[in-house]
Amino acid sequence: LSPPLLTPTDFERALRSIGAELYYDRHPFHKLLHGGGLSKGQVQAWALNRFCFQAGVARKDASILSRASDPDFRREWVLRVLDHDGFGEDPGGIQRWLMLTDGLGLNRADVLAMRGVLPATVFAVGAYERFARNEPLAVAIAATLTEFFSQQLHQDRLRGMLENYDFVDHAALSYFKRRLTLAPRDASFALEFVKSSAETRAVQDACIEAIRFKCQMLWTMLDALQFAYVDGHPPPGAFVPEST
Amino acid sequence: LSPPLLTPTDFERALRSIGAELYYDRHPFHKLLHGGGLSKGQVQAWALNRFCFQAGVARKDASILSRASDPDFRREWVLRVLDHDGFGEDPGGIQRWLMLTDGLGLNRADVLAMRGVLPATVFAVGAYERFARNEPLAVAIAATLTEFFSQQLHQDRLRGMLENYDFVDHAALSYFKRRLTLAPRDASFALEFVKSSAETRAVQDACIEAIRFKCQMLWTMLDALQFAYVDGHPPPGAFVPEST
Repeated sequence: LSPPLLTPTDFERALRSIGAELYYDRHPFHKLLHGGGLSKGQVQAWALNRFCFQAGVARKDASILSRASDPDFRREWVLRVLDHDGFGEDPGGIQRWLMLTDGLGLNRADVLAMRGVLPATVFAVGAYERFARNEPLAVAIAATLTEFFSQQLHQDRLRGMLENYDFVDHAALSYFKRRLTLAPRDASFALEFVKSSAETRAVQDACIEAIRFKCQMLWTMLDALQFAYVDGHPPPGAFVPEST
Repeated sequence: LSPPLLTPTDFERALRSIGAELYYDRHPFHKLLHGGGLSKGQVQAWALNRFCFQAGVARKDASILSRASDPDFRREWVLRVLDHDGFGEDPGGIQRWLMLTDGLGLNRADVLAMRGVLPATVFAVGAYERFARNEPLAVAIAATLTEFFSQQLHQDRLRGMLENYDFVDHAALSYFKRRLTLAPRDASFALEFVKSSAETRAVQDACIEAIRFKCQMLWTMLDALQFAYVDGHPPPGAFVPEST
């Protein structure tokens, strides 16, 4: 006997509770980042590695777009691709991220080539891309629902980094300011899709596990940053900050 | 003008030098493991995570097997699948690994289900499996050439673990004893294949990069083990040893 379908309310509660428990807002590296506990070189390492994630997220959304058969769904989902890559006057999130790495003094060609990015970052981002490509569409989209938790994180980041670091300014942090309005729109649309399209308990459970997977990959990226750049064990070939 | 093809001698030297430089025999976690610097719980964590790699390696070899069009090549390569999975009287490497985890007191069902394996391990092994599936065959096979360096490592491990830990014995370490004879055979065959089938400089360079990639994924697994279990930061949901 398979367990019964969760009601929409219980399903949404289960989805949210995994994120509340496992989202990487609680990771010690974020407390250091927002609290002014990192050197400029450590913030550079974070921004460089996170660029690899930003680049992967754009492909992840394009791959979900390529798998959706409903044009109305695609009309909504394509907004994410436009947000990453830019459209018309908007330079897009990837360019905004490069404003951050520029502002931190990283060489743009090195960032674009992802020179010195931690292998752990590459493997985690690769796992996320494949998840989006291979899992059932509702499950792939459920993995994006961590955006529900990003708003508070981005607010804390904006305030904390502006207060605590003289090497970042409003322009360098424009990525996060923009996400404050985009993430809730994206997350609400994705949640409605997941709720209405997860029609079996097995798919519902897989959607809940998808958030766990996503939280694990985000957490793993910060573990690797902390080990390499806070604890001082960068693996061979990884970015080494100039002493600042 | 593209750079000229490397001579077989220079190509082999380049392949071996990357491994000599980047192979994970030099990782601090291995020094702890072999030198008696780990608790039983830390050795359990290593054996559990490494099981995930062993399981992935079997699939990796099956995927290379599935892509090779030459029956003579497949007659050789299938020996790796037989070595992993067992054949006739031989229980195979995966079973020998389970003798190690049994000997360490880990619950076999938990190991088989990979409960509590670090996400970083899963992502690294996944990257290796995809590499074997997606790269040109010579490049995929070049990634296996780290076996040239495993013999000394396995000898050090056998001697070091038997000397330093009262909770392991010869039977628990039979996996490594067996690899002492298999790895050189496998590596020599793979090297000859790579040398004879990398017919452009671009493929030769990709083969050299493949060893770098493989060394990075092996190194990343140990970084994650060290951060989680030596430095004491296991991520949420990861295996936690009973205090021993």
